[in-house]
Formats: sequence, C-alpha cells, structure tokens
Amino acid sequence: MSEPANTAPAPAAKAALPIVSIENISKWDGQEVTIRGWLYNMRESGKLLFPIFRDGTGLLQGVVVKSAVSPEVFARARELTHESSVIVSGKVRADKRAPGGYEMDVIDVQVVQLVSKDDPFPITPKEHGTEFLMEHRHLWLRSQRQNAILRVRHEITKACRDCLDQEGYLQVDAPILTPAACEGTTTLFETQYFENEKAYLTQSGQLYSEATVAAFGKVYCFGPTFRAEKSKTRRHLTEFWMVEPEAAFATLEDMMALAERFVSFVVKRVLENRRRELETLGRDISNLKKIEPPFPRITYDEAVEILKRKGSEFQWGGDFGGTDETLLSEDFEKPVMVHRFPAAIKAFYMEPDPQRPELALGVDVLAPEGYGEIIGGGQRISSYDLLLQRIKEHNLSQQAFDWYLDLRKYGAVPHAGFGMGIERAVSWICGLEHVRETIPFPRMLHRLRP
Amino acid sequence: MSEPANTAPAPAAKAALPIVSIENISKWDGQEVTIRGWLYNMRESGKLLFPIFRDGTGLLQGVVVKSAVSPEVFARARELTHESSVIVSGKVRADKRAPGGYEMDVIDVQVVQLVSKDDPFPITPKEHGTEFLMEHRHLWLRSQRQNAILRVRHEITKACRDCLDQEGYLQVDAPILTPAACEGTTTLFETQYFENEKAYLTQSGQLYSEATVAAFGKVYCFGPTFRAEKSKTRRHLTEFWMVEPEAAFATLEDMMALAERFVSFVVKRVLENRRRELETLGRDISNLKKIEPPFPRITYDEAVEILKRKGSEFQWGGDFGGTDETLLSEDFEKPVMVHRFPAAIKAFYMEPDPQRPELALGVDVLAPEGYGEIIGGGQRISSYDLLLQRIKEHNLSQQAFDWYLDLRKYGAVPHAGFGMGIERAVSWICGLEHVRETIPFPRMLHRLRP
Repeated sequence: MSEPANTAPAPAAKAALPIVSIENISKWDGQEVTIRGWLYNMRESGKLLFPIFRDGTGLLQGVVVKSAVSPEVFARARELTHESSVIVSGKVRADKRAPGGYEMDVIDVQVVQLVSKDDPFPITPKEHGTEFLMEHRHLWLRSQRQNAILRVRHEITKACRDCLDQEGYLQVDAPILTPAACEGTTTLFETQYFENEKAYLTQSGQLYSEATVAAFGKVYCFGPTFRAEKSKTRRHLTEFWMVEPEAAFATLEDMMALAERFVSFVVKRVLENRRRELETLGRDISNLKKIEPPFPRITYDEAVEILKRKGSEFQWGGDFGGTDETLLSEDFEKPVMVHRFPAAIKAFYMEPDPQRPELALGVDVLAPEGYGEIIGGGQRISSYDLLLQRIKEHNLSQQAFDWYLDLRKYGAVPHAGFGMGIERAVSWICGLEHVRETIPFPRMLHRLRP
Repeated sequence: MSEPANTAPAPAAKAALPIVSIENISKWDGQEVTIRGWLYNMRESGKLLFPIFRDGTGLLQGVVVKSAVSPEVFARARELTHESSVIVSGKVRADKRAPGGYEMDVIDVQVVQLVSKDDPFPITPKEHGTEFLMEHRHLWLRSQRQNAILRVRHEITKACRDCLDQEGYLQVDAPILTPAACEGTTTLFETQYFENEKAYLTQSGQLYSEATVAAFGKVYCFGPTFRAEKSKTRRHLTEFWMVEPEAAFATLEDMMALAERFVSFVVKRVLENRRRELETLGRDISNLKKIEPPFPRITYDEAVEILKRKGSEFQWGGDFGGTDETLLSEDFEKPVMVHRFPAAIKAFYMEPDPQRPELALGVDVLAPEGYGEIIGGGQRISSYDLLLQRIKEHNLSQQAFDWYLDLRKYGAVPHAGFGMGIERAVSWICGLEHVRETIPFPRMLHRLRP
C-alpha cells in the first residue's frame, strides 16, 4: 500500500474516517468517508480526473482536482487501470447530474493492486461473444448488468422463503443424493456411492416432501436440482434451484391459491427493494406491477381450444411446447394457470380428477411475456392401491418406492404442492433472454467451467 | 370419509368451523374449531377416551365423552389406530394439567384413513434399534423428538441468512457440479458430465465465493456439500449443508469478529423462537444463554500448550482430532476460536501470517460441551505469485485454477471468510449425540435410503 500523501489529512485523522458502502452513500452527504473497491471507469479532462468506483453495492463517481491533492495522489489516481483495487477517501457531495445522485471529492487514493497495463482486465465495454463471457464468468459477474441480476435473484430467493415462512411452512431439506430414479435414469446424473451402490442427483425434492408433510403439516424444500438433458435452449440448465412447497390436507385448488399469493408476494418484494436493479436492466416494471391475485385459470381443454383458435395444429392429449406456452400466455397480463391435464402426459403420482379420471389434478403456471412455465404442481395420489397400480403401469420398481408407498398406508391424507424454478422466475422478473445469466455459475450441456 | 354424526352440529354449522393449527390453539380458548392431523396416542378410561392428536405443529389432547357424542362418533374415535389420519372438531378448553395447556372436548371425528390393525405403524413407543429407525426415516420424522430437531434446524438456517442479510451480505450460490478438484479426488463424488467431461460434487463454495466477493463486496453461499469419506463417526455425513460468508477487504480478525456475532445471533434466535422444542429435547438451555460475544481466542501455539498441560501427547505441527478438540473446549463455556495454524496442515489458499510465515491466518471455532469444530475459515492468499507457488507446491493443475488465479491479477484485495456446517451446529444447539438426526434424510457411508 502507498504512503499517505503530503497534502492529505494527518494519518491519525484519516484512519478515523468511516468506511462506508456506496449503497449507503446518501447518508454521508457533506462528510469525509472512505470507500473500498475497484476502478470501474475513468475519464480525464485536463487537470481533472473523473474515476468511477464500484464496491459491489453501487457505483460512485469521484472527482480528483490536480490542484487539490498532492502530486503523488494525482499520479496514483491517473495511473489506475480498469478493475484495479483501491481505497479512496474523500468528501461526499450531492450532485443531481451524477449517477446515483452523489459524487466524491477525492482526498486520497491508495492502490491495493494495480492491474497490469500489459495484461488488462479482459472484459471491456466493447461487445464480447457469449462464449468469451461465459468462459470469464468469474470476472463477468462484476458488470453492472450481472450485478443487478444476481441482486434480484437474492431478493427472489429471500422472498420465496419469507412468503412460505409467513404461511406457516417449515423448510425441510430433501436429499440431493437419491437411490432411485423417479422415472428412468436417462436424464439423471449418476455417481458411484462407495463400493456397492449407485446414487443419482435429485431432480425434485417432492417425493421426500410428501414424507415430511405428514410430519410437519406444511413444508418446503429449497435446493439445487439436476437434469442431464441434452437440451440446448435458452430455458435449460443442467443444475438449477427449485423451491417446492407441499401441504397436507391440501387440494389442487389450495395450491393454485398458494401459487398466486406466492408469485405475487415475490414480484412485489422485488419491486419494493430492487427498483434500481430493474432500472439497470431496463425492465418495463409496469408489467410487473400488474402481478397480483387472482391469476386467470383455464383448463387444459380450454387451452387446447385457444391454441386451435389461434391456428395451432396442437391436438388434445399432447404436452405444451415452448411455442404453445407463448401462444397461451400472450393473451394475459398475469401468469395463467392451466390445470387438469391428461393423466397420460403427467407424472405417475398425480391424483386423478374424480369427475374425469382421465385427467390429472395438475397445474402449470405460465409466466406472461412469453417466459413459459415457471411453476408445475398439483395434488398427489393418496390411495395406496391406486399408487401401487400406477407404479406397476409405469414399470417402476415397487421395492424402490416402498417407503413412498408407506406414506399411503400410515395416515394418508389429501396433499398437494408445487415447484417453482428459481432461474426461470429470475429470467422473467428481470426480463432476460436466456437463463444462463440468472445463476452465478451456469451449468449447461457444453458448460461446466469456471 | 365418514358421514356426520347425528348428535354433532348440523353439517352447515360444522363446515363453518375454523380450521386451526395446534400451535395456535391458545387463541381459540372456549371456541369450537376443527383440527386436521393424525392420532398420536390414545388412552381409554371407561366411558372416556383421551386421544392425543398431532398436526405437525404440536400435540393436543382430546376428550371424548361417550354420553356427549353420538354412538357412531364414539365408535370411530375408539377404533382409531396410531397414525390414522383424522379431522376432529371440538371445543378448546384451557387445562393446566394438559401438555401445552389446552384440551379439546371432542364433538366430531372424521376418519380420513384408518391405519390397519394388521399392518400397524411400525414405530412404537418401545425402543427400536438405530438401523430400524434409519430405515424408517420417512416415518420416524413424525416423532416429537425428530419434529423438534428439524424445527430448530429451520430456525438455525433462517437465522444464518437473516444475520448475514442484516450484515450486508448477498447470497450468491456456488455451483454443485464443479470441474476441478480442490485437492485430490479421493473424497469427491464423481459423475460423468455428458460425453467428454467428468464433474465432481462440490466440497465447499469458497473458491467461487472468492470470485463473487470481487463483484459484490460481501457474499455468502448456502447449499449442500459432499464428502465421499469412509468415516463412520457421529460427526460425519457424506451430504451436509454449509453456510459460507466471504468478504472483500477483510482479514482473519474481521472474520473472527463476524463468527462470534453470527453464532451468537443464531443461538439467540433459537432461544427466542424454539424454547418449546429445546424443552422437548431436554436441552439444558442455561449453557446456550451464555453464548454471546466476545468468544475466547487462543492461538494454535497456546492450544498445544493447553493440550500438553492436560497430559496429551499432541505435538506442534499436528492437526487436532476429536479428543483434542474436546480437551481444548472443555475449559470454556462459549465457543473457543483457535487461530494461526501451521500452514503445512491447512489448505493451499490460506494467507500466511506476515509475522510468522510458517503460520496460516486460519481459525477453527470449537463448540462447547465437546461438540468440536463448527466453523473453519480464515484469510485467503491475495498475491498472484504466492498463490501460483502454492498451487505448484501442492501439485495442483495450474490450468484448472486459471480462473482462480485471475482473481489475483485483476483487482486482488485482502479477503477472508468461513464456513459453518449446519448439521454440526444443529447437533450442538440441540444437544444431540449424533449428526444423523440433524438432517431430514441423512446420507452416510452405509446409508443412502430412503
């Protein structure tokens, strides 16, 4: 670190300056403070330098006046390269023209590490290809856009928990390493579990939550889930996070009501606490302001009629693809809940509709603006006999599911739940093109690094 | 479901009864309500039945008076088996003798599913072996003890997040699937990542958090971590959760200060919100009430002296085993922080002590009452040259760590962090013998099911 400059305040006084975060800078108007961070950008204009600093919580423009600081401080400031780490002291001053509304009249600059001019920070304001940015994800995260997305992500995950906690749900984590495949192993990551066993990375905590609802009444799990799918679309990751509430004595209708409260709660929180980040992303927040209960509800049958009316070739009995989802959701300003699907296209554990047993009591929630499915869920079979029959029909191992069948022998209750994919929710709320920006270190078909 | 009984209130009136949680039963004193849950226990005394119901939030004793209900309701109540699911209506009445302080004068009992007498709930009040209970973990979770532990676990994980959120840390999730091994692959679970690559399940998010601190200033990751260790001790799981804060411009001392604030915050929250659960577990809470900053701090050198004074054969340069940790912590009522270890026994990325470069700026936090290490952390190397040297000394692949080295080229800062193992913290705070009860579905050397 550099020596204190001659014209700066005496070291004792300097040491006492409060170290503050840029996000709180407005509280220090007119006072001398120290910030610690990195050089984000620099503009020079004769005897003035306008460095922009970032500290992870925001950006702050500094003003270095040659005549107001020692030659050493001015020289140190002037030689700063992009992303060099610094400790900067100065006086905070409100300035309406400045981004964020404040500037700092710089008194002292200490260089922690100067990025070499011969090996500069690889990400520049110029356009980079996606592969280059993904390969440098560990550095790309420092950009204002990525910073904003991951701040929104944190707000979303926190809001998911807060909502469910308030609703009386208990977080009960499901295991990641599981012994049995839900339905086939083709999309599962497999690992050797010591000498004698194979384990698979979970695709959903739901089956385990069905055990824990009988112990706690209302539960949720929230963790990473995995799918070894060779899909290469803008909506697919191989590793993604899911929040999955499950409730005992609950029906499909209860879960639809929870889903609309839950999604609305999350969007409202982001609007309240992350407005600045949404602005950085250029998100049209007028669309987000419309997200409140009730959400429109249509049956699968009605959805098929809508698709046909719009000229689609879609046939009753099929599962919606991305295009179908977009066609269905484009008429609605809020997420639309499509319910009661053909049982044949849904998972083996779905409760049939008592009115029409060929239908399953399931629901998909499709985000507006073409973002597709963000939630899938429904009511689970509570009858032992029916579940056993379905396990046999699907050629699943009865032995692997013995514990799951137990839940129907010992105090079965109607129960239901859903799962929301965090990355798809982040993608929609932030208004992003591709889910790869919604998670700190995305894992995709051709991407396991850094 | 059963028909409404003759002597019960008319169906319309019954339908209107509020459905309440047992944990909120005190708010309904003197009123008629409905609870939904399971039969936990039953005592019969002539013309009286005393069923105890559980709904996942608590226990409530009912009183069924033969003369006060219809013969059908009495018969249905009487035939209830352990863990049968029920919907029960009645009047709430304060009774000091009752566990929880309230009873219910039962008006109606509807049976949702009657557990067969021929195939009764496998877990009975009698003693079961550990293997039997672990094999029936999906049902064992319904016991009051397991219920209490996992309620405390939820409180702990929530408190961890709330503390760090309040301290200005941003949750930034680290990936689970990672390309490179930290140090060797012997304790890593490996999986084939599509055609050409191998992926490993993370042992810690720390290296990734070192990237994200430079983007956000203060971060934490919180997720499952994995160790394919063949250890079979009461402190080891193969899958466990870690919360790992990391801060830029932070030193070992900053992290010790954070660790004591953090642990104290968590314990205080549990004492505030989960007193009833700690009582269920028979936890001596007087020990927990002592947990507040500052925590005692001793150097590794001092720790070695303490061990020798106590007659241990321990030699300077060794790593503490479980017995050493117990000897060290038994003199203290609070967690003790042991710092500045021999660099040779610590990870390659640890910053050396500038005063004595043979020491690493690391800290272990040992819980009191013999619970051993709950936190490990320290300051990370910020010099590119030194980190590269260490990578070579440890025979690690420079290419695998190129992105990690980048962090020292582009704006390196002093930075530090720690990781707390959730299961060990739950074990200590609950006062448990074995970590296997601290996680819903434990994974151990010989345990991958259910």
